Parts: sequence; C-alpha cells; structure tokens
Amino acid sequence: MTSRTFPTLSTPSGPVPADAAPWNRQRGSQMPSHRYLSAHERVPLPLTDRLWPSRRLTQAPLWVPVDLRDGNQALAEPMDPARKRRFFELMIAMGYKEIEVGYPSASQTDFDFVRLIARGDLAPEDVTIVVFTAARRDLIERTVASIEGIRNPVVIHVYTATAPTWRDVVLGRTRQELKELIVTAGQDVLALAGDRPNVRFEFSPEVFNLTEPDYALDVCDAMTELWDAEPARPVILNLPATVEIATPNVYADQIEYMHRNLARRDGVILSVHPHNDRGTGIACAELAVLAGAQRVEGCIFGNGERTGNVDIATLALNLHAQGIDPMIDFSDIDEIRRTVEFCNGIEVHPRHPYVGDLVHTAFSGTHQDAIRKGFAEHRARAAAEGVDERDLAWRVPYLPIDPADLGRGYEAVIRVNSQSGKGGIAYLLETEFGVELPRRLQIDFAHRVQEHADAVGDELTAGELWTLFEASYLLREPSEPELVRYRLDGEQTEIALRIGGEERSHRTSAVGPVESLVSALEAAGIGIEVLSLHQTSVGTGADSDALSLVEYRRGADVRWAAGRARSVLEASFAAVMGASGRAGA
Amino acid sequence: MTSRTFPTLSTPSGPVPADAAPWNRQRGSQMPSHRYLSAHERVPLPLTDRLWPSRRLTQAPLWVPVDLRDGNQALAEPMDPARKRRFFELMIAMGYKEIEVGYPSASQTDFDFVRLIARGDLAPEDVTIVVFTAARRDLIERTVASIEGIRNPVVIHVYTATAPTWRDVVLGRTRQELKELIVTAGQDVLALAGDRPNVRFEFSPEVFNLTEPDYALDVCDAMTELWDAEPARPVILNLPATVEIATPNVYADQIEYMHRNLARRDGVILSVHPHNDRGTGIACAELAVLAGAQRVEGCIFGNGERTGNVDIATLALNLHAQGIDPMIDFSDIDEIRRTVEFCNGIEVHPRHPYVGDLVHTAFSGTHQDAIRKGFAEHRARAAAEGVDERDLAWRVPYLPIDPADLGRGYEAVIRVNSQSGKGGIAYLLETEFGVELPRRLQIDFAHRVQEHADAVGDELTAGELWTLFEASYLLREPSEPELVRYRLDGEQTEIALRIGGEERSHRTSAVGPVESLVSALEAAGIGIEVLSLHQTSVGTGADSDALSLVEYRRGADVRWAAGRARSVLEASFAAVMGASGRAGA
Repeated sequence: MTSRTFPTLSTPSGPVPADAAPWNRQRGSQMPSHRYLSAHERVPLPLTDRLWPSRRLTQAPLWVPVDLRDGNQALAEPMDPARKRRFFELMIAMGYKEIEVGYPSASQTDFDFVRLIARGDLAPEDVTIVVFTAARRDLIERTVASIEGIRNPVVIHVYTATAPTWRDVVLGRTRQELKELIVTAGQDVLALAGDRPNVRFEFSPEVFNLTEPDYALDVCDAMTELWDAEPARPVILNLPATVEIATPNVYADQIEYMHRNLARRDGVILSVHPHNDRGTGIACAELAVLAGAQRVEGCIFGNGERTGNVDIATLALNLHAQGIDPMIDFSDIDEIRRTVEFCNGIEVHPRHPYVGDLVHTAFSGTHQDAIRKGFAEHRARAAAEGVDERDLAWRVPYLPIDPADLGRGYEAVIRVNSQSGKGGIAYLLETEFGVELPRRLQIDFAHRVQEHADAVGDELTAGELWTLFEASYLLREPSEPELVRYRLDGEQTEIALRIGGEERSHRTSAVGPVESLVSALEAAGIGIEVLSLHQTSVGTGADSDALSLVEYRRGADVRWAAGRARSVLEASFAAVMGASGRAGA
Repeated sequence: MTSRTFPTLSTPSGPVPADAAPWNRQRGSQMPSHRYLSAHERVPLPLTDRLWPSRRLTQAPLWVPVDLRDGNQALAEPMDPARKRRFFELMIAMGYKEIEVGYPSASQTDFDFVRLIARGDLAPEDVTIVVFTAARRDLIERTVASIEGIRNPVVIHVYTATAPTWRDVVLGRTRQELKELIVTAGQDVLALAGDRPNVRFEFSPEVFNLTEPDYALDVCDAMTELWDAEPARPVILNLPATVEIATPNVYADQIEYMHRNLARRDGVILSVHPHNDRGTGIACAELAVLAGAQRVEGCIFGNGERTGNVDIATLALNLHAQGIDPMIDFSDIDEIRRTVEFCNGIEVHPRHPYVGDLVHTAFSGTHQDAIRKGFAEHRARAAAEGVDERDLAWRVPYLPIDPADLGRGYEAVIRVNSQSGKGGIAYLLETEFGVELPRRLQIDFAHRVQEHADAVGDELTAGELWTLFEASYLLREPSEPELVRYRLDGEQTEIALRIGGEERSHRTSAVGPVESLVSALEAAGIGIEVLSLHQTSVGTGADSDALSLVEYRRGADVRWAAGRARSVLEASFAAVMGASGRAGA
C-alpha cells in the first residue's frame, strides 16, 4: 500500500493519488524483466529542446517501397521473377517514383531483375531504381555490374551496422576501425560509379537508433564529405530503427538531433527506415517526419523481417485522412491488396488499418445508429450544397474516411449480430429492401433481433433480418377474422368480415378506410386502437410493394403489425387485419 | 520544380534543399484528400509547454482488458457463455486485476455472465469487475440489477459521446444540454448504487480526442464533483481516442492538458482507451502514460471495432523489453494466443509483435550471422559470469527479447532460404546436427545453398540442408581410387590403394597419417594439396560420428571434401579419399 505500487508522476498539478494504491491490486509477474535495459540506458538521449512536438504534417514525404529487397528477404518463400515483376508493376501503377528493387550482390534473382530493368522498358524513365549492398568491395563491384547500361536514375545504397553490440559481437571493430571500413566502401563506390551522371548514393548506418548519436553524426558527415553532397546531387542518409527499442518520441529526438546537426544539410535527403518490433513503426515514421525526415522507406502493408518494416500504405492514407495528398493512388485498395498477398504469400489481417476486411464495419448498436445518421446527414448536405457525395467533406461518425475513396462499397459497413441495435438493423432493411421503419418500431424489432441473435449466436444477414421481420409483423396465412370484401362509395364505406364461418357486413361513414375497418372490427367484438400508421415500400421499382406499419393498443399492450400489398390501401387493411388477428390470438 | 513539391521545414539548421526538388518526381495522386480536415482544424491544440516528451516509462499502468465488452461487440460472432468464461479465466490466470466483463443492459448474455460472477466463485475477491452502460436511467437500472449481491469490487462505467459531430448529428444536443444529460445519469448512478461500499464509478466522454478540451474538462470536473472523487474513493476518468485522427503526440498533449487541469486530481484515476485507426494505438497509449495517464483499457492482441482497441499485450511486453515488470504473466504466450484466437474467432497475424509466428525468425543472411554470434556470446558470457542463460542480461542482435521469456524455443529463430547466408546455415547445422563448419566452408556451402534455394524457390529445413551438404561434400559410393587398407606402425605407415583394378602398397615415414595418405596418392599419380583439415562431429551422444572436413587444392581450384566415420582417423582418410576422387573426376 505504498506509493511504489502505483504509477507516480511529478507535474505542475502534483503527484497522482498515492492513497489510490488500495485500488491497485496488480502484482509482480515473475517475468524476467530485469534482463533488459531501458532505451535511455542503452543509448544517450541527444537533445531536450526538441521542436517536433509543435510541428504538423503538411506534405507527403518521398516514399521508397523496399518490398522487393527488405520485404523479400523476410519471406519463407522469396518472390520468383514473375512475382517480383508483378509487384514492381503494381508499384509503378500506384505512383511510386523511387523503388528499391533488390540486393543484386546477394541474390542471383535480384541481379537478374536489375538486368531486366536495364535492358527493357519495365521502369518508366522518371522512376529511380535503388540497389542495396553491404560495404564490401566485391559486393559493390557486383552491384555496379548489375546496373550497367541502365538509363533510369539509380541510387546505390550502402549499409553497415554501427551500433555498439554489432561492432563488438558481430563485426569485431572499434568505432574508428568501423568508420574506416565505411569510408573505404564509400571510396570504392565513388571509384566504380562516381562518374555516372544518373547515379546517386545512399548510406545507412544500420541500427542507427542504438548507435551513439555523436558517432552516427561523425560517420554520416564523413560520407557526405566524401561523396560531396550538394543540393544539385544530394546524398541520401537513411537512419534505420532496425530493431525498435523505445517509445517513438525517442526516435523523433534522434532524428531531430541529426537534422539539426548534420553537415551539408542542404545536400542531404534525410531518410528513415523504421521497423515495428514494438508496434510503433507508424508512429516512429510520423514523428520522424515532424522532426525533419524527408523520405521514408518501408513496405506496402508492412512486410519485413520479424514484425516487418513500417507500413507505407497506412502512412500514406493517414495523410489522406488529414487532407494531405498522399501522392500515391489507393483508389482500388483491394486490387493492391490482392497483388501484395499474392507476391508475399502472407494475408492482410482483417483489422489492418484501411485495408482489412473488418475496418469499415460496425457491429455495435450505437456505432451503427451514429453511422446511419451520419450517412443521412451526408446525403442531405450533398443535396443542400449541390455537391457530389463523393466529393463532399466527410464527417460520418466512426468512419475515419469514406470507404468509397478506396474503391469499397458500403455493404460491409454495417453488419448485425446480438451486439447490434436499432440503427444497424434499420440501416440494413433500408439499404437492402427500401424499408424505412419508424423509430418506435425500430426499437421493438431490435429487441426481437437481439433475442434471436443471442439464441443463434451468429451474425444476421439483411435477408435473415427480413425473414425475422416478416415472421414478427406480417400476417401471411388467412386467419380469423377475414376481410371478405370492401367497397368505398363516396363518404360511405362497406366492409364485409368473416368470423367463425359467418359473414358480417358493416357500413360506416368514418373519415378514412382504416377508421372504417377498425369500426367494423369493433362492431364484430374485436376492439383495437390504432395509435399510428406509417407507409413505406418494400423492394424497388416495378417490383415494389406498399408496406403499411400499424402501431396499435389492445388492453395494456402496445404492438406493431405490418401489411404488404400492391396498393397502399390494401396494405393498410392487411396491417389492421394482422393486428386484429394477433390481438385476438 | 518548385520547393512546394518537396517537404520543407524551418528549423535552426535552415530549410531542407529546395534544389533537391528535381530528385522528387512524385505526382499528385488524384485521391480526394481535400474532403478531410487535419486534426488541428478539427480540435484545438490544448497546450504547447508539454512535459511528456522528456519523461520516461518507469512502471506498468493499471491494465483493464475490455475484450469481453468492447472486443466482443466487434465480433461477427460474439462469444457464447462458454467462450466468455474461458477468456475470463485466462485473464485471471495472467494476473489482470480489473476486467470489464460486459454491457449487461444491452445483451442478455452479458447480463447472465455478470450474474454468474455474482453467484459463484469465478472471480477471485481481489479482481475488480467493470460493467459498462450508456447514460440512460433504464439502462443504469438494469446494470445495477446485474451486480446485485456481488462481493467483488465493482466499477460502473458510464459513457456518452461528447464530440461536436456526435452532439450535432447523432444526439441532437447542445453542449449544455448534453452536460445536463450526463450529470443526470451520474445522479441516477449515485442514487441507485452510491451507498454500496464495493462500488466505484467511471465516466468516459466518448470520442474525447475530438471533443473541445475545455468542454471535456468541464464535463469531467462536473462528474468528479458529483461523485465526490477523493483519494479514498477515486473516480476513473477514461478518455478514449474512439477514432484515431492525429499523430500520437497530439493525443499525448490532450491527455497532459487534462492531467494538469483536472479538478480533484488526487481523487482521479486518469485512464486512456486508444483505438488503432491510424495504426498508432500503441504509441498513443505509451505517450499518454508519459503525459499522466495511470490506467489503460484495451484488448489482448488488439481486438475491437474496425482496426481494434489498443493491444495491451504488446504494451505490456514493450515494458518488459525495457526492464519494467509488466505485472502480467506472458510466460506461455502461445497458450494465451490459442485461447484468444478460439474466443474471438480471429487469427493473430504472423508479424504481430511478440506473438506472431514469424517475429522471432530471421531469414536474411546478415541477421542470421549476427544472431548466431550473439547466441555464442550469450552462452560464453553466461559461463564466464556463472549465471543461468535464461537469467542473463540479453543483448543478442535483432532479437528484441529472448523468445524463452515467452515460453518459445529457438527452433524458429533462424530459417534458411535463398536470402540466407552462411550464418543461418551454419547455425542450423550446428543446432540440429552438432556439425560445426569452419568459416571458409560456410561460405562455400552458402553458395551451393543459395543456388539450390534459388532453383527450388522455397524455404529449406535443417534436414534438407544436411542432405545437400552430404551430396556436396561427402563421398558415399566406393570409387576410384579406393583405400584398401592401412597400417600405422610406429613411425612408418603403410597404405594400400586400388586403382584401375590394381592394388598398390606405399610405405612412408610422413609425420601423420593424413600426410601419409596424401603421399601415397601422389605416388599413384593423384596430386592433391591439403590446405586445412577440421574435425567436428555429426549426431549426438552414442550415435555421433566423427566428421572430417578437408580443404584442398588441385591445380587452380580450392575445394572442400568431408568424410564421416566412427573414428577421427577413418573420417580423415574418408575425407582425403573423397578429395582425391573428386579431384580426379
């Protein structure tokens, strides 16, 4: 019951209630958490006067899909040439202008693919081709050989891990030795490809986020000096969070430190390459762009080793959802998804932002009700403003963007089960059958739907809802009493009913035909009080029927009945007869 | 080619290179992004002197899984009572001490489940039960009825949407009218359950993140005043990002604003409930905790409407990976996963942080090499420090945490395909067959593996690798020349070879038996130069054989051959004979 068991904070409003500790019954887990260091213990925090939290996204960064390299390296079954080509063509069609196509010195398939681009017209001339290589002379030679004769702009992307554990355990080099290795590789690249006017250079200090900031800066500055980075031929410095280790604000701080301290800053394109080990890859990329990054490497829908690279589809659509042109075309997201799934052999999760099967769907009653009202408001506003619905400012509750922007319909938006309320049910009957239910009938029917769904335990389709509606409110079999005939004759109405095998005729001068029928029923000893009568239709066009909905009281009970017929009059009569039959039952 | 087409920034180091624009060939996408407002246009930014970016996570927040309510509402097929019960028991076993069990006024199944808890011993007495209700008297009455007689601590959780679009389009109420509705519901709760000593109250201004900060504060303060929030009986204020609309730093600002300005702060448990529409739910929760939140609602592995609620398993394990006790037990994550998948009917994605099938796997060669070296360093350090490997500080590259912490083995860590290098191959042969390959043989074999994997296009198992190794290096059929017999006799060695049907005996006084065999071969006209000879074993224990690996030159070619036998001597002879056979082939 000490304050240690409760999260404590020191802020202007004072610490949080230590006395609240009795409400905190959480116990130690026995997980061996002591084995791990915090991010702050692993790498120095480079700055405290950060500016990025006050900045806003205003423009799309340069996008570089690395699906064909980093993504491909992470597949149990890497892409064959046909799949690589199909994926590449998809990326071209979507509008990507810089694409990392492979690691030609490490894979014959990748080498051959770069040769295919060099020989053919697979890549439009405005598309930059990025080839990836480790910092070793033989690999750089092979990389340069792969791009021989290519006409597209090319980026040669050299990487070396720079973090302490990698230096010590994997590479066995000191800071200085590793810097020399990197600079030597940079000299090799320059010697082998420096004179080609269509070639630029990129350097990635791999595991940047675990590298001492001063060392990362020192190595990067050495490379931009060596490669003579200048605005007319900028060098790309790509700073990967190869393994996520900290909350995303720490990565943003690291990027802002580099952005503010790099030499030749105007000759540098500052790039990021986040991974997703902590599930915060998207956030890392976004906060890094706020902090000064201009270019983002990642995979469409987030493929890559372990938890994947940052998902550049979600990043782009996050911009779209804030009014910023993503510069990439997602107007047929399901086609993009099919191609990516085919090439990667990994399915997209149903809750994956923007593209999953369930992400434009609402099951809960309050969400459905709000969405239904939001759609109605959207249509009304479009009509009032004379604007196409697909072009109108979007503000439908619970739907971050209009599914139509992504080429999706509205069928999946509202689905009904035992958790659903009147809104979703009413929406489905309206969109699928053209039936508009009055509010009180929505509530009455929602109770029946919920009982039914609780009992069957499953989702209900619109068709199943309609079947339940018919069973609940529509009289289908002839029953007692039976309406034999009616005649409307000026102000007089004649109604003939058959009850107990006996036909009774009744004449009234009541105001309307429904009133007349009620009067005839009353005369036959069947008293019902009609509280309200609503007209709608069921079906569309020439096939549509009138549907009358009657709310009635018999004794203490208030109930609903419906009638369906070709004419409104006959539908109303059918509804009242239904009410009288039920009332008598 | 204007600077408008390139991301621009204003910071102390000056704007980024406008001249770099020629490198930016991205074009407008034709997506209708103009339909959407930025977060900053939708809701005022509440503060600029934020403190959260300088703060660090030091302690687990209070966790509240809402899988049985919010998660359940989002399923096509909601849980039946058996599944609800199984999920609840899982959460108890994991150590959750506060669990939202349902929305009893909206679902008979949920009502019955709360009754089950009230009647039985399903919930240990230190577990707090949360029941959820909309702010309407009849629903509150039903909610209070559901908890009748329950002995556990109970939280009654009342919610109402407070954001402008919801007020205008869904609820049709002004700010003042809505506040009155909420306060009235708060009075109802107080009247119906205020005198029960085991009951506390929670209020959620739904869509908090789109609500004007001053209004959210006003309504929250009204509720804590009404409910007399104090340290001895704190009120939970839960501030949902019901639909994600902004980068996660904006949510953190909103939470810090509330944290610093709420009345009766020491009588409030500040709670967050992020969703994941932008893929930043985890980041929102983490930054919100930095900003002052003490309690997090979410779902295990992130189920929930659309893209889901924040994933509280990933949040907890993110703390674990930074040395902070998550207060929840994930030591058998696969059992947790099986239960959650069974109850939700939705599979976990293979790249889901910590739990996906592929997240502890490395395919790429450099990763495998680094992991192999990391494991070796880990074992050596454990031995040097006399510490159990499972208790030793973790620093294996590319693996954020030890899979063993989660009850996983190392089998899946390294898998080999055409993207893999020597490290992974060597690792698999070592762990599966006990074979340790010298570095140059690793490189030689990796080329053969890559060719083979490129050709078959598929992942290779350890068994397939071994088959390929045997085919590449081990002589299995008797061939020319044949070693007929040998005799080691003091300093003399006699070797008999059969070549072309003819047996030749050779006596040498060479230093070692291998040298003698080489000498005998040379005398027979088969000249090979042995460059190096390595001994390892294959198999384990009594079944293990000696495996000799010989690197040899014949002419300009340097090659490898292997020999397998019960003794090291015979294995070495077999390797040299293999080399001589191949050399002659």
